[in-house]
Amino acid sequence: MNQTPTPPLRKGDLTKAHILSEALAIANRDGLQGLTIGGIADRCNMSKSGVFAHFGSREELQIAVVQEYHRRFQENVFSPALKSEKGLPRLEALFSNWVNEVSHEVDVGSVYISGAVEFDERLGSVRDELVYSVSTWHQALHKAVRIAVELGQLNSDTPPEQLVFEMHGLILALHHDARFLRKSNSQDFAKQGFSRLIQYYQPHHLPTRL
Amino acid sequence: MNQTPTPPLRKGDLTKAHILSEALAIANRDGLQGLTIGGIADRCNMSKSGVFAHFGSREELQIAVVQEYHRRFQENVFSPALKSEKGLPRLEALFSNWVNEVSHEVDVGSVYISGAVEFDERLGSVRDELVYSVSTWHQALHKAVRIAVELGQLNSDTPPEQLVFEMHGLILALHHDARFLRKSNSQDFAKQGFSRLIQYYQPHHLPTRL
Repeated sequence: MNQTPTPPLRKGDLTKAHILSEALAIANRDGLQGLTIGGIADRCNMSKSGVFAHFGSREELQIAVVQEYHRRFQENVFSPALKSEKGLPRLEALFSNWVNEVSHEVDVGSVYISGAVEFDERLGSVRDELVYSVSTWHQALHKAVRIAVELGQLNSDTPPEQLVFEMHGLILALHHDARFLRKSNSQDFAKQGFSRLIQYYQPHHLPTRL
Repeated sequence: MNQTPTPPLRKGDLTKAHILSEALAIANRDGLQGLTIGGIADRCNMSKSGVFAHFGSREELQIAVVQEYHRRFQENVFSPALKSEKGLPRLEALFSNWVNEVSHEVDVGSVYISGAVEFDERLGSVRDELVYSVSTWHQALHKAVRIAVELGQLNSDTPPEQLVFEMHGLILALHHDARFLRKSNSQDFAKQGFSRLIQYYQPHHLPTRL
């Protein structure tokens, strides 16, 4: 995941950015399948042809929404963690930012989580873009684990894929319990689970309890 | 979760059971929102009024599908675990059966998992039924944890809600990675995570690794 500087926007770009922002709000709430050119035109007080001038098809709009979601996720979760020291502190910051992002999404919805359910069986370029985004994020986490191992902060036989699988599980359970079951203490469960997980893979792992 | 014996079916009941079975297949694939009286009538080669004779509304059909899904989940996951000894062996059987059920659902879809995303913001009786079903299942797991604690197989301060939260996280990550990312080794990750989790809460917890 790289940070790319954003150039200043021209008027056409501003309109496009506005459409995208509104489309993202619809997708978070109703899912990517809830997005239509007509629906977004209504919401932006534009004609359908006005929307088509920026996004040639519904699919193109859906892909742009996935990319915009990914960009914001990177901005909120990934980039701020770069301020933390490489290795375990950064891995902890990545998880902590992820928990905060998902907790925020309890109110607005999540393109990654609902998208995975919407597109589990639908093939095509929207699904491909979603898989690419999610995989990129998981790879960034694998890398953070590997660096923590190289620095000796996690045991040398720590399996990055296993650890990231479990981190993701904690996030999915948090999202499920907070958004669907409306439970208020899910953040604590996720954080507690993560502490135990990291503790397990730390050198000089002792039988102390959290 | 109790087991209720199934009485023999009359012809009307058989038709109803057939509609329900077809409706469940649609709901697993397309979600509960994908269910319509017209769609199910087509699939069963019936008239819409024929379907209405058994289910008075689309909502009633959706609720019946949630109940049928719950019944089958209970039959496949909960009931077979009763053959295992009370306590930790039963908790392990519950998790193992759950992993198998979700692995099977990687092909056919899951009403619980997709339903939670579909109905996260939709209020009403279908959502209530889903929440009731999922909560009943989680409570059955809490109970299994509490019994394992009472029998001294898990530490006395084991928090049932925390443990079940994490078990659920492993299941959600398994479902996500197997169904959306099409990864083949997700079952192993889920089982490995569960072993580590149980090991942590076992008495005489030692720093041995799996």
